[in-house]
Amino acid sequence: MKVAKQKSEELARLAALVRQMKIGMLTTIEPDGSLRSRPLETVEVDREGRLWFFTQAHSPKSARAEAGDHQVNLSYADPRDEDFASISGTARVVRDAERMRELWTANLDRWFPRGLEDPDLALLEVRIDKAEYWDEPRNENVKIGTLAPRQA
Amino acid sequence: MKVAKQKSEELARLAALVRQMKIGMLTTIEPDGSLRSRPLETVEVDREGRLWFFTQAHSPKSARAEAGDHQVNLSYADPRDEDFASISGTARVVRDAERMRELWTANLDRWFPRGLEDPDLALLEVRIDKAEYWDEPRNENVKIGTLAPRQA
Repeated sequence: MKVAKQKSEELARLAALVRQMKIGMLTTIEPDGSLRSRPLETVEVDREGRLWFFTQAHSPKSARAEAGDHQVNLSYADPRDEDFASISGTARVVRDAERMRELWTANLDRWFPRGLEDPDLALLEVRIDKAEYWDEPRNENVKIGTLAPRQA
Repeated sequence: MKVAKQKSEELARLAALVRQMKIGMLTTIEPDGSLRSRPLETVEVDREGRLWFFTQAHSPKSARAEAGDHQVNLSYADPRDEDFASISGTARVVRDAERMRELWTANLDRWFPRGLEDPDLALLEVRIDKAEYWDEPRNENVKIGTLAPRQA
C-alpha cells in the first residue's frame, strides 16, 4: 500500500491509521434505502488525501458510484488496539489501465483472481469530505479530527 | 457481552463474529446526506438476533433514530484475522431503566463516565434486516450469509 506525503498532520495521522488497518469497510446506500458495507483493501492514499481501491466495474457498489449515487462511508477498525476511523466521502469509478498497472500488487489476486486481465477491473476513488478518528478508548462522540468542511 | 442462543446456524455464526470483534462501526445517514460512522460496543445479541448498545439520547445518532431515520449499517472488522461482517438494520432508541441495569457492565464507564446515573443514557436497538459475513479472505462480493429477506 502506497501512502503519499499528506498536506496536514491530521491527514498524515489518518493515513497512518489506514495503512495500519488497510482493509476498510465501504458503506453505500442501496436502491432499497438500506445501508450495506463490504471489505475493501486500500491500495493508495494519494497526495490529495484520496483513497484508492480496486473494484469490479459490474459490481453493485461500482454501479452505484457510476450512477451518480456517490456518498459513501469508509470505516477502519482495529478492535484489539481500539483504533477507529470514519471517512465520509464521495466515490467514483476510474477506468485507467495505466493507473491500474501502477497500483496493482500480486497479493490482490486473492480478491481479483483474474488480475489486470479482468475486463471488469476498475479503480474506485474516494475523496474525503470529512473524517474522524479515535486513537484510543474515548467517548464515542469525541471528534479528534475533522479534516475539511463539507463542500455543499 | 451477552449472546443468546440464536435461531439459525447463520445467525449463531454472525453472533460469534460480533462477540469476537465486539466493537462495531455504526453508519448512519446525516442530515446533509453524508454517511458517518462511529464505534459502538455491543452489549447483547438477544434471542431475536437484535443487537443492543448504550447510547446518549442527545447524541446525533440517537436523534436520527428517534426522528424516524432508522436505516443503519453495522460493520464489524478484524483486519488481522480478516473477519468481516455487514449488518443492514433498523435502529431505535429504547429508554428502559430496568433493561439498562440488566445490560450495564462496569467497563462501559470509559464510554459513559456518568454511568447509569446519566439522564441522557439510553439503549440503541438494531434489528437485522439483512447481513453478510466474510470469515476469511474471499472475493469481496461473495455473500456467505443472507439472514433474512428485507421486509419491504
